[in-house]
Amino acid sequence: MIQKITLIGAGNLATCLGKSLKEKGFDILQVYSHTEESAKTLAEKLNTEYTCNTDNLNLSADLIIISIKDDAIGGILKKIKNKNLKIVHTSGSVPMKVLKNHSSCCGVFYPIMTLSKNRDMDFSDIPLCLEADSNEFLSELREMAGRISSQVLEIHSKERKILHMAAVFANNFVNHFYDISENILKENGLSFDLLKPLIRETTSKIMEIPPHDAQTGPARRCDKSIINRHLKLLKNNPEREKIYKFVTDSIISSYKKTNDKPERKTKKN
Amino acid sequence: MIQKITLIGAGNLATCLGKSLKEKGFDILQVYSHTEESAKTLAEKLNTEYTCNTDNLNLSADLIIISIKDDAIGGILKKIKNKNLKIVHTSGSVPMKVLKNHSSCCGVFYPIMTLSKNRDMDFSDIPLCLEADSNEFLSELREMAGRISSQVLEIHSKERKILHMAAVFANNFVNHFYDISENILKENGLSFDLLKPLIRETTSKIMEIPPHDAQTGPARRCDKSIINRHLKLLKNNPEREKIYKFVTDSIISSYKKTNDKPERKTKKN
Repeated sequence: MIQKITLIGAGNLATCLGKSLKEKGFDILQVYSHTEESAKTLAEKLNTEYTCNTDNLNLSADLIIISIKDDAIGGILKKIKNKNLKIVHTSGSVPMKVLKNHSSCCGVFYPIMTLSKNRDMDFSDIPLCLEADSNEFLSELREMAGRISSQVLEIHSKERKILHMAAVFANNFVNHFYDISENILKENGLSFDLLKPLIRETTSKIMEIPPHDAQTGPARRCDKSIINRHLKLLKNNPEREKIYKFVTDSIISSYKKTNDKPERKTKKN
Repeated sequence: MIQKITLIGAGNLATCLGKSLKEKGFDILQVYSHTEESAKTLAEKLNTEYTCNTDNLNLSADLIIISIKDDAIGGILKKIKNKNLKIVHTSGSVPMKVLKNHSSCCGVFYPIMTLSKNRDMDFSDIPLCLEADSNEFLSELREMAGRISSQVLEIHSKERKILHMAAVFANNFVNHFYDISENILKENGLSFDLLKPLIRETTSKIMEIPPHDAQTGPARRCDKSIINRHLKLLKNNPEREKIYKFVTDSIISSYKKTNDKPERKTKKN
């Protein structure tokens, strides 16, 4: 059973995960970050020790969790000389196999969530995607994950990559459109608050019906006169104009496809 | 005071608005739609009369609400011979002035919301944007709007157009990305439900902090290796690949701008 954990990383995900694990009774032995300030800040939150030196890593833990930028994982692994460790990473897009030659048991512990250091996050509803190189280790990870979330799934590297990419569309890209929207309003002296009830409803709708059926608006209706009026309004900002055109065309063509092939639903649902 | 209403239109917005007005005690004298089935369906819901013939429009109402496709507004107005009427339309992008020559008082009653016929909607939190050609008529509309919503604002045609366009970004475009996301998952045998907690959190975050500050993910971190891995995954779908590239570049450049000009916040907030 996993009880003692060394946490490599002190970013958004490491912070939220560390706090949640500690709350659920796990012992966080140590926090590592290459920036002393980050390591110290998180260690204080978790009431534990920290280091910025890979030579001083506490490797007596039951599990090493690597929760750092994808690009940095390889570098950290090279610094860990002891190969007799259980190691997981938390990345959506790095395959499990990168850990293989650096550990006795390896796995992945990927939460499907957007996390910010200063935003407390209850992990209990967050889907945790697990992968492990043995059934025994998978069971251990399942037990650990089950203590912090009610949604624990086994997802292999290939599907995890897909999930992560789909999450970029549904989270980062969506957020960027909120950002553009807020900027358009600000530049015209209008408050983004005016759109918040609409945004809440847009989200709440797709919790119940498929987004494809939930769509409304000028592109959905192929209402060329509104679309052209909007494009005219965007003339002074070629990037926004291009993005408007592009996404509008994509919506129009996605409903054309449905109309052309009414069997799509049967095929895909 | 406005009490008796004739409703021209039987689409999503007309349906939700009609139901809400009836609930709050207004008398819906008649529903008009050029399709008999739609007119009949809504009239039954509102327990009132209907017509599909503009010659039979009940013009004895205190207010005529035109809630139909933007393109159809002009056509309906030509059919209304009585010029001694109070008329509003509910469109986000049609200027008030199109009603001018067809009414004694004209105005706009634009709810910032996405509405579906079969989805009950509580109007009480929906911002209602009003415009009128006189202070007297504006007061009447304010009184009426205040009975169904706590958020009533005066917004002129120019700002309303901007609002409507910003809403397309924050609602229709966002929803399209949910759709793409669901399709990516489906094609790989994964459930869209896995992303729902993330989507809820993305939305909930921007209720509290500006979207620009809420952004996370590979584009925000300019994490080229993940971005390239995602683009590789999208190779088999050139349209999605293009959209991924395009929005990613737009995010990267939007944070470059912030870094280049740290005074941006002060300027825009």
